[in-house]
Amino acid sequence: MSLVKLYDTTLRDGTQAEDVSFLLEDKIRIAHRLDELGIHYIEGGWPGSNPKDVAFFKDIKKEKLSQAKIAAFGSTRRAKVTPDKDNNIKTLVAAEPDAITIFGKTWDFHVHEALRISLEENLELIFDSLEYLKKNAPEVFYDAEHFFDGYKANPEYALKTLKAAEQAQADCIILCDTNGGTMPFEVAEIIKTVKKHIKTPLGIHTHNDGDCAVANSLIAVEQGIVQVQGTINGFGERCGNANLCSIVPALKAKMKRDCISDEQMRHLRDVSRFVYELANISPNKHQAYVGNSAFAHKGGVHVSAIQRHPETYEHMRPELVGNCTRVLISDLSGRSNILAKAEEFNINLDSKDPVTLEILDNIKEMENRGYQFEGAEASFELLMKKALGSHRKHFQVLGFRVIDEKRGEDKRPSAEATIMVKVGGKVEHTAAEGSGPVNALDNAIRKALEKFYPKLKEVKLLDYKVRVLPAGQGTASSIRVLIESGDKHNRWGTVGVSDNIIDASYQALIDSIDYKLHKSEE
Amino acid sequence: MSLVKLYDTTLRDGTQAEDVSFLLEDKIRIAHRLDELGIHYIEGGWPGSNPKDVAFFKDIKKEKLSQAKIAAFGSTRRAKVTPDKDNNIKTLVAAEPDAITIFGKTWDFHVHEALRISLEENLELIFDSLEYLKKNAPEVFYDAEHFFDGYKANPEYALKTLKAAEQAQADCIILCDTNGGTMPFEVAEIIKTVKKHIKTPLGIHTHNDGDCAVANSLIAVEQGIVQVQGTINGFGERCGNANLCSIVPALKAKMKRDCISDEQMRHLRDVSRFVYELANISPNKHQAYVGNSAFAHKGGVHVSAIQRHPETYEHMRPELVGNCTRVLISDLSGRSNILAKAEEFNINLDSKDPVTLEILDNIKEMENRGYQFEGAEASFELLMKKALGSHRKHFQVLGFRVIDEKRGEDKRPSAEATIMVKVGGKVEHTAAEGSGPVNALDNAIRKALEKFYPKLKEVKLLDYKVRVLPAGQGTASSIRVLIESGDKHNRWGTVGVSDNIIDASYQALIDSIDYKLHKSEE
Repeated sequence: MSLVKLYDTTLRDGTQAEDVSFLLEDKIRIAHRLDELGIHYIEGGWPGSNPKDVAFFKDIKKEKLSQAKIAAFGSTRRAKVTPDKDNNIKTLVAAEPDAITIFGKTWDFHVHEALRISLEENLELIFDSLEYLKKNAPEVFYDAEHFFDGYKANPEYALKTLKAAEQAQADCIILCDTNGGTMPFEVAEIIKTVKKHIKTPLGIHTHNDGDCAVANSLIAVEQGIVQVQGTINGFGERCGNANLCSIVPALKAKMKRDCISDEQMRHLRDVSRFVYELANISPNKHQAYVGNSAFAHKGGVHVSAIQRHPETYEHMRPELVGNCTRVLISDLSGRSNILAKAEEFNINLDSKDPVTLEILDNIKEMENRGYQFEGAEASFELLMKKALGSHRKHFQVLGFRVIDEKRGEDKRPSAEATIMVKVGGKVEHTAAEGSGPVNALDNAIRKALEKFYPKLKEVKLLDYKVRVLPAGQGTASSIRVLIESGDKHNRWGTVGVSDNIIDASYQALIDSIDYKLHKSEE
Repeated sequence: MSLVKLYDTTLRDGTQAEDVSFLLEDKIRIAHRLDELGIHYIEGGWPGSNPKDVAFFKDIKKEKLSQAKIAAFGSTRRAKVTPDKDNNIKTLVAAEPDAITIFGKTWDFHVHEALRISLEENLELIFDSLEYLKKNAPEVFYDAEHFFDGYKANPEYALKTLKAAEQAQADCIILCDTNGGTMPFEVAEIIKTVKKHIKTPLGIHTHNDGDCAVANSLIAVEQGIVQVQGTINGFGERCGNANLCSIVPALKAKMKRDCISDEQMRHLRDVSRFVYELANISPNKHQAYVGNSAFAHKGGVHVSAIQRHPETYEHMRPELVGNCTRVLISDLSGRSNILAKAEEFNINLDSKDPVTLEILDNIKEMENRGYQFEGAEASFELLMKKALGSHRKHFQVLGFRVIDEKRGEDKRPSAEATIMVKVGGKVEHTAAEGSGPVNALDNAIRKALEKFYPKLKEVKLLDYKVRVLPAGQGTASSIRVLIESGDKHNRWGTVGVSDNIIDASYQALIDSIDYKLHKSEE
């Protein structure tokens, strides 16, 4: 299995996406995860373009990476200056990365319109920028910007630009589909011709404007490309870059090409999630290989089939990328789904048991109101316990009041909550402040209940997610709150839905505490 | 340009997606939009599988469609019964669609494991199911389920199943990549061989498990396939079906194949949005061709280039699919973006003007605190007006109080807000209730200000989005609220950020009202 090198540009091209931007600390943390994943090159940024990127190259030196090389991105020198005088080139060298990648113009139209120089001058730009960098960096890559469009417009000139890079001894020449509109059936032919003229190892860099970025990259590898550039989750400008989370499993599981280890690939889904988290973007459920729905089965026929033979409706084993087969609870789903779910929680349900159907109906009714039990397994478990009559009531909330007050135009509002709970015969009436109304309510509930259940002091609120559910036919839009809590040993998720955000949060908070009290009894 | 027939299965395969389900009325409305779009075949459902689908075929007959044909989906007959006795086949015929599509097994493994019959029997199932349907339906299509996997496992047998369909005179044989794992470089070769043995017109039906569904479909068309099956927005089980919103523009704009008219394609984005709406799913920003970000430019270099020549960084004209070019504001953006944006708002900014840099710095600082102006153009415009000193203060909020109260365990909480505003010399102190605290505050603010500005009665709150921003180093996690408002003529977005959700909502609400007041002065 010949090796394919993975070149990740999540930290550079990925941040060109409309909704993606990372703090410096985020970029460092992501670099570590990419290194552990086995990515060969991590493009950290364009030091010439902004101070945050300069800082990244400075800070990353202090970090211990196990194998990944750090690459810096930039452009060929400007016209009329020598490389050693070009600011952009100087900042690249000053960043002292393990590899430097510069892009240059392939498309004659861009040379005329964007650079406004002669075709000949552009070849010089490419040649002596690379020649200079080769003397000042361990490894130098050349991104042939707009290669496929340029080749289609003027093949002779496009190849000349690659020749210039080859003569300057670039270590790899990357064919870029910068505008992302290249059709999959064009890629193989073009690369075949390139390989007739260019002996330098080739790479591929595609964008997804035609919805073909992954396919174009895989076709390129099939044609002997040795470096694949892409981003985690396909983050990138406009429609994104080629998605490494789709490319890596294809290379390993389907094309049997060497890139990262089996053990590393089992973390692919985690890395995908981690990057979504730091980018503060909710994961794409339907994402190939790593998405929640990627191996989720809804149709009853499929469900019974995959339970006998997964390969009947799964193109590969989800475990290979750290994903798993899921059986969905929905109006298309039968008892088999609900039983499978109960099994996940070690709850014994008999398919004959009427309780099973009761739970199923209950879930369907709640889902119609906007509840969702993925990520809220604790609420789901409490639901089943209640249906099975094995739920014990530890406390009673008699009432609460949350007050959020702003006094004076430039003052920040203050939040306060009062609460009245009953445990056994005792009533506790207390109050607490918070940064916001939900935080205040959370503080008040805990303050009141910790008196009776000191264990609750261990519980921490780890994550709080709010989702406004689009209004259905005529109904007012409601709000779903997902809360993740944890103690020393476990993490659990709970859910609440209401047209009142305080009420929805309250439901999820109460479930979280209720769950903890049940667990500590077991 | 030879014609490629489009076969949409959004209403059948699309509803297999984890989060997609349509009401009967939705399905009828979508069918009309698909018909107007020029889709040739609309697969309405599987009448044998559920009553909702039976009802669809009954109701759609009463509707006037301009050109689309309605197809019903089902399977080959069961073993040991003749087609005329098979319930599934009978419901298909009873539905009286314009076309019937049945799927049968291609993969020997499935014949043994799923059907548990002999390979020979399966060929009979296919042949006489189709032969019977040909006598009882205007057009009959055969979906060769798992064709590509089946072909790779046992090519001889896979081809035999197609031969059986050909002998029964199926009008089109559709090669299905049911598990969605076929690699793009496999497709062309396999279809070439099929065409050596099969003369019946061929179709393609792909799934996106390998992130290659669109590419595989386009490669198939390049190989002479005449029917392409897919769904709007790629809805479908697991990772979805081939996305017709990506396939159609590729066929027309890039492959110059005839399918729908130019005028029809200009509605592609609308249709995509319409289907997202009815499915209650928020559109994928980065979706190829029709997404909000598909032609959005962030990097300063790109922005200045596309302003001179769009084709420099756009693979096609967005107008062809009813989309448009957008310029984004972010920490990657240089003066050119700010200037372009200002121009959009008819605000005169001079790139030399220090104010331009002041705005840029201000934006970057706010973005670090979690603000985001994409989708909040109104807040951005107010920001610029303030920087330019052209912002007029219409009112002053002296303070507010929001109370959310729950009395009794099973009572729903009630929300009330009080507010004090000052306009000119006058102070207005009032109160209002709401379904939740934000709604109550919104009602109170409007109630107070409508006294002075009756115009505000026109303003409606159209959308309210809450985003919890992950906690940075030690800092408490903050909350971003995006609000979309509208009146008879316009829609505008505003943003607020705070660790207090009421405060964040308040900021966005105030901007929305402030914006309206400024607009109605211009």
